[in-house]
Amino acid sequence: MARKSNHIRLYVDHPLGADQRVSLTRDQAHYLFGVMRLDVGDAVALFNGRDGEWQTRVGVANKKGGDLVCQVQTRAQVGPPDLWLVCAPIRKERLSFMVEKAVELGVARIVLMQTDFTQDAKRVRLDKLQAVAVEAAEQCEALVVPEVVGVEKFSTLMGGWDAARRILFCDEAAAGRPSVLPDVIAGPWAVVIGPEGGFSDTEREVLQGLAAPVSLGPRILRAETAAVAALTVWQARLGDWV
Amino acid sequence: MARKSNHIRLYVDHPLGADQRVSLTRDQAHYLFGVMRLDVGDAVALFNGRDGEWQTRVGVANKKGGDLVCQVQTRAQVGPPDLWLVCAPIRKERLSFMVEKAVELGVARIVLMQTDFTQDAKRVRLDKLQAVAVEAAEQCEALVVPEVVGVEKFSTLMGGWDAARRILFCDEAAAGRPSVLPDVIAGPWAVVIGPEGGFSDTEREVLQGLAAPVSLGPRILRAETAAVAALTVWQARLGDWV
Repeated sequence: MARKSNHIRLYVDHPLGADQRVSLTRDQAHYLFGVMRLDVGDAVALFNGRDGEWQTRVGVANKKGGDLVCQVQTRAQVGPPDLWLVCAPIRKERLSFMVEKAVELGVARIVLMQTDFTQDAKRVRLDKLQAVAVEAAEQCEALVVPEVVGVEKFSTLMGGWDAARRILFCDEAAAGRPSVLPDVIAGPWAVVIGPEGGFSDTEREVLQGLAAPVSLGPRILRAETAAVAALTVWQARLGDWV
Repeated sequence: MARKSNHIRLYVDHPLGADQRVSLTRDQAHYLFGVMRLDVGDAVALFNGRDGEWQTRVGVANKKGGDLVCQVQTRAQVGPPDLWLVCAPIRKERLSFMVEKAVELGVARIVLMQTDFTQDAKRVRLDKLQAVAVEAAEQCEALVVPEVVGVEKFSTLMGGWDAARRILFCDEAAAGRPSVLPDVIAGPWAVVIGPEGGFSDTEREVLQGLAAPVSLGPRILRAETAAVAALTVWQARLGDWV
């Protein structure tokens, strides 16, 4: 909810360490010096998903480039829990929304899958969704940007599923059952969410073989709502909210 | 997630009962007969927030009006728990989203409040937000459409707050504290969410006097994400998901 004012925070794919110089892409330079009007000496926070968060200062500033110089590490690296969101592509705005919220709530990876009732698998723009994830991570003070991968076929994904990664299967047909998580704390997890229209009977059988269905209450949630609710239930019970 | 195909469901502000005729507005007639191409005898599900859900058949169908005849009650009336969402207006799309999700997750009332850091209070269109709530309720199989009210001043709202309605105060400054709810099951509740930028210190003091702050994890959630997460935590613990 709170956004620190004048707190500019960027994700970079570059090592961060004492006195490290980080050169800026043209887009980053445009944002920092053209849009945000920063100048030499101004502060920018950086993270790269590996080296924690660093306070940096603008070293060189011009419209087509420039660099930032790392001063001091302000936060040590901590990842989100080993939680994946596995979901089917839905309509563009709602899919972007689902990715943004998954990053805010704290997932390590977002896997898109093609299910029997998936409409929009071909139109998925992974690069745009990854950009949404980067912006969400910059905004929400995360130290990691989850990778957005896919689109994998449901049968391939579940056929080769690693049994060590437990599945939270939110099944609309489980409405009425208590929304209780299996009492397991440790280990990797995945929240699995179907498309609008839900999973086919075949898919539901496969998932029921891998996980106990969990209810998200008596109403029928949209796919992106179910994703946010399931990630919340998991984080509040087993994740880094506890 | 699942949407019943060919399942047309409308909210009406009209009594529902055996053999009851429900006349349609011009918009409803246009939707049913113009857009959905229904004809005399076709099925439509109706709810009004009081009489449960009824299976009806088209009695009279024309482009400017018509009516539906109640056949049988398919679900008895049950309300959502007595849970309010109290939130500050945020940017248009995100506010609509917050209202839609609050209806899906199950709230009885949505109260908009003007806080010290609220930007967009004057631009709030309550009629549009109420329409969003109606559509969400029709879609998610809810039996009640929460009323969207406001915009009330924070000081007025909290000054006259009924102590019997417990507050779930999601405080970004509580990050790190466990996201544990007070162990209280019974009675009315309100989830209170601040605007982008959070609550002012004065407002936070007032809220801390009314409720123990609860954390929604180590990341900084956007207002609408915090609303969805807080409603989920409440429903899964104290509400109609249990």
